[in-house]
Formats: sequence, C-alpha cells, structure tokens
Amino acid sequence: MHLPILFDLLGVFSAAASGALTGIRKGLDLVGILVLGAATGLGGGAVRDVLIGAHPPAFLVDWRYLTTATLAALGVVVVEYRLAAVGPLLRERVRLSTAYLTVDSLTLGFFAVSGTGKALRYGLAPVPAALMGVLTAVGGGVIRDMLVAEVPTVLRREFYAIPAALGSVLVAAVDRYTTALTPLAFAAAGLTAALRMVAARRGWHARLSRPPRAEEPR
Amino acid sequence: MHLPILFDLLGVFSAAASGALTGIRKGLDLVGILVLGAATGLGGGAVRDVLIGAHPPAFLVDWRYLTTATLAALGVVVVEYRLAAVGPLLRERVRLSTAYLTVDSLTLGFFAVSGTGKALRYGLAPVPAALMGVLTAVGGGVIRDMLVAEVPTVLRREFYAIPAALGSVLVAAVDRYTTALTPLAFAAAGLTAALRMVAARRGWHARLSRPPRAEEPR
Amino acid sequence: MHLPILFDLLGVFSAAASGALTGIRKGLDLVGILVLGAATGLGGGAVRDVLIGAHPPAFLVDWRYLTTATLAALGVVVVEYRLAAVGPLLRERVRLSTAYLTVDSLTLGFFAVSGTGKALRYGLAPVPAALMGVLTAVGGGVIRDMLVAEVPTVLRREFYAIPAALGSVLVAAVDRYTTALTPLAFAAAGLTAALRMVAARRGWHARLSRPPRAEEPR
Repeated sequence: MHLPILFDLLGVFSAAASGALTGIRKGLDLVGILVLGAATGLGGGAVRDVLIGAHPPAFLVDWRYLTTATLAALGVVVVEYRLAAVGPLLRERVRLSTAYLTVDSLTLGFFAVSGTGKALRYGLAPVPAALMGVLTAVGGGVIRDMLVAEVPTVLRREFYAIPAALGSVLVAAVDRYTTALTPLAFAAAGLTAALRMVAARRGWHARLSRPPRAEEPR
Repeated sequence: MHLPILFDLLGVFSAAASGALTGIRKGLDLVGILVLGAATGLGGGAVRDVLIGAHPPAFLVDWRYLTTATLAALGVVVVEYRLAAVGPLLRERVRLSTAYLTVDSLTLGFFAVSGTGKALRYGLAPVPAALMGVLTAVGGGVIRDMLVAEVPTVLRREFYAIPAALGSVLVAAVDRYTTALTPLAFAAAGLTAALRMVAARRGWHARLSRPPRAEEPR
Repeated sequence: MHLPILFDLLGVFSAAASGALTGIRKGLDLVGILVLGAATGLGGGAVRDVLIGAHPPAFLVDWRYLTTATLAALGVVVVEYRLAAVGPLLRERVRLSTAYLTVDSLTLGFFAVSGTGKALRYGLAPVPAALMGVLTAVGGGVIRDMLVAEVPTVLRREFYAIPAALGSVLVAAVDRYTTALTPLAFAAAGLTAALRMVAARRGWHARLSRPPRAEEPR
C-alpha cells in the first residue's frame, strides 16, 4: 500500500481535537490546551516513526503535521468559546462528551490504517505492522491521558484496543492482494471508529466479574 | 558476551506477568490486562533498543517477544480464574502480592543481564552499558506503574535500582575477561532478584529521616 | 551554530537539580531522589536525540552527562541535609520552592538553546528545530512530573511553553545570520529563564474564564 498520508493527517487532526477537548475538560489554560492537543496529535505517530526507524519522524520534516495539530486544537477552543457565547442551553446540547467520543473514535480508525500502512511500507511483517497500527492508534491517547494523570482509556475499555486491532489486521491482511487500497482503508477506518462508538454508547464490556483485590505492591 | 536471547525472553515473560497481575489488582478488564501485560513486557526492551540504535526493536522483528508477553499475561489470567474457582481459601494462600513480588524481582534480574549484554554487543562502553541494563530492568515497570497512575516502584524503594545496578555492573565488568558468560549471567540475575526480594520482605530502606516538605511547585 | 555542549550540560545540571528537589518534596528516599534527578536531567535530551536521529544519544556516549546529573542531584541532597542541620529557621529562609523555581527556569533556558542548536546541526529546518528546542526544554520536566504522578507544569502554566518557544525561535532565527552565537545564546537562555521566573512570581496567566466542565470521558 502506498500510504495515503491523508489518513495520517486526518488522524492527527482528530487526535489533536481530542487532546484539546480533554484540556478544556480539565480546565487547562490556552497554552496548556494547545500543548496537550499537539502532544496527542503528534505523539502516537512519533512513537511509531521512532520504532519503525523512520528518521526523522514525519512531524519534524513535514510542516503539515504541526499545522494540522495546531489548527485542530485552535478550532476546538474557538468552537467552545462560541458555544459559551451563544448560551448554556445550546452548549449543553452540543455535549463535550459526545464531541470527545467522536473525535477519539475517528482517531482510532484513521491511525490504525495509517500506522499499519506506514509500518508495512517500512518493511515490517504483517503481524508487527498491525501491532504498530494499534500502537499508533492508541499511542496519542495514552500520552494524553498520562499527561493529565488519568489511567488511559485503552486500559479501562475493552472496545478500544479491539477495534484498533481489527482495523489494523484488516489493512495488514488485504495489503498483500491489492495496491488500490483507498476505499478499503476508508472502510477499515470507519469500521474501527464505528465499533468503538457503538461499544461506548451501549456500554459493552467484559469486565472480570470479581471486584479488584486491593493489595499494595511492594 | 553473545547475548543469550533467553534472558531477554525470560525478562519479557516475568515482566508481562507482573503487568497482568497489576491489571488484576486494579480491576481492569481482560483486554486491559493483556495490553498492560504486553506494554510492561515489551516496554523496557523497546526503550533500550531505540536508545542503543537497534532498529527495528527486537519485539517488532522477532515473533517470540510478542508471543511470550501474550502467553505470560494470559497465563496469569487463567491461573487467577482457576484460583477463584477453587475457592477463596486457597486463593488467599496463593497471595497476589507474593506472586507479584516474585515476577517483578525476576524481571529485574533477567533484564539487567540482557540489557547490559545487548548494549555491550552494540558497542557501548561498560558504564553506559550498565546504565542501559538498569534502564531495561526498571523500564517496563515504570511504564506499567505510570499507566495505572502510580508512582513507580523505582522511586519508592531503594532496593530496586540498587540490585539492578549491581547485576548490570557485574555483567559489564566481567564481560571483558570471558566469553563463556552463561553461568555468570544466571548468577547475576539470581543475585539481583534475590536482593530485591529479601529487601522487600525485610523492609530494608534508608528513607530520609525528615518528613516531606509539601510545597507546591510553581 | 556549532552547538556549545556547555548549554546542554548546564541544562542537565539544573534539570537534575529540579528533579532532586521534587524528590525531596515528595519524601522519596535517597535512591529515588538520584533516579528522579537523573531521569529529569537526561530525559529531555534523550527524547530529542532519538527524534533527530542522534544515535546513540549523547548521555550514552559522553560520560559528562551522567556525571553532571548525578553531581547535581547529590549536591541538592547534601545542601538539604546541611540546611536541616543548621536549623529550621535558616531552612525556612532558603525556601525549597524558590530553589525549585530557579533551577527549573534555568533548565528551560539552557535546553531551549541547546535543543534548538543541536536540531539545526542535524539538518532540521528552523521551525522543527525550534519545536525540538521546546521539547528538550520541557521534556525532562514532563518526565519528572509524570513519574511522581502530577500533571506537568507545561500544561498548568502558560508562561512555561511560551518562554521556551521564545528562546528557541530566537536561536533558530538568528542562526542563519551568524556563526558566533555564544553571547546571543546566553541572552536567549537568560531571557527564557527570566520570563518564566517573573511570570511565576507575578502569577501571570490567561486562564480560560469558565470553570472546567467535569464530564467523564468514555
């Protein structure tokens, strides 16, 4: 697959938006929101690029990465302010949590595709390539959640790593048989995002049925 | 020293088990437990490989790494369920904290040896090689603890970095004089693990005698 | 600009001191303080070196890095003990928070200069080079704060990323026109540190005027 850089930038955009929304939820100031947005948008891809040996990482050599991340974070801030100006009623209807869930799900889909595709292009075998897809997809969110001292979503929700793995495996599997992957890539990204959203809305989970045992580690 | 990859895989196994046990203690769901196990098992080695310039990191080119980490995490989950089925009595006797302490100590020993050995093989001088040994040994655990929003053990217990440093320095020092290191490597790993376990059991520490001063950073 | 390694080592020194002071504030034991000091002192530069492709990172090939970080952390511990011995009165006057603010501000200045300079030397364009300057400057502190489970300063204070960006952009901009940069580098570092200190002392901020909306992420 010739990696559609489009997917990577779409992932950066939605990831940066999710970071900025988290910053707003946490009451960060403007710079904090922008920094958290940039770190979330660029973090997952940076880890992927370092691991697969793409030096220097894309966000350092392609100006569109930083620009996309900054614009996404700024866009979120502007929308938030306008909503606040319009009044609490409308603001309540355009719920922060729905916006967050949407961009976070899209991030998962876009990055699963772009991460797997780039890893394949750098010569990785299908299984590690799919692993890099998952890592790219969840990486930015993990950085985001760790920065605000929360346990990352990937550890708290089962249907987070699972959709990412599904989309990544799909791309890695089909890559062998065709080079015209763009429609399939969109399908894989959409499937991943949809699965994550539906699971979150319906509250799907398979939590271990016993309560946690709280023993202090040594 | 021709690095015995065996040590690296043993480290991955015990580290992944410690990650899975932490996931159970924290009440994570199945996917969360597997993800935390894989991140703990593969994280320390990945950081080491990136720093010493081993591209791509071992866990991306050698399928045994991911397999070992997954099997270890799954094994922990299965044992936990069987213990739960047998009954609370037996389950109390096979204490989670003892299992955790054991695999965490073994991780320290195995990774101190394999981390130092691999760094030497990549041309690092003895002192930085030993530093990489320590980093490999404590790295996975740091990632594990940060993911569940806890202060890492290496910061909370003195006899954590010290045993890892001891084992690493031992390997780095002896490496000059012999090429048949396997017995010595086992001794270094065992010494490291034993020192950490005994220190934890006996409560060795050298905490600063004053209470912390709680001043807010600016 | 031929990177004055001096700036990198000055950054390591002040960053390690800030890490050690954080360790004391958090009541860590001696090993924890040293580990936190080393991680803070060496972390930002290690991330930079990995991203710009400087293999292996400076702290692994140049013994002065680890030595500087260790000496800084040990120095902080010794001074703290002496102050404690002299008595609570003097100890109160030499406030921990002032010392922390000072070394943390100096870190920002030194690393903004050395990070930008090294990135330029490795062929990055001015904008990504300045981005690497900011990342180097705030990186160690982010690692430090995440290790002790706090939200990093860069997210909580606006005049943290801003001074770092200012110093970095200054170095990146002027680098084109001159090769004798040492005085300018000192000016940029001093400006960065001073701006951060004054902003912290005066309580400058531009916090969003609304309280945070506490909605749980899915």
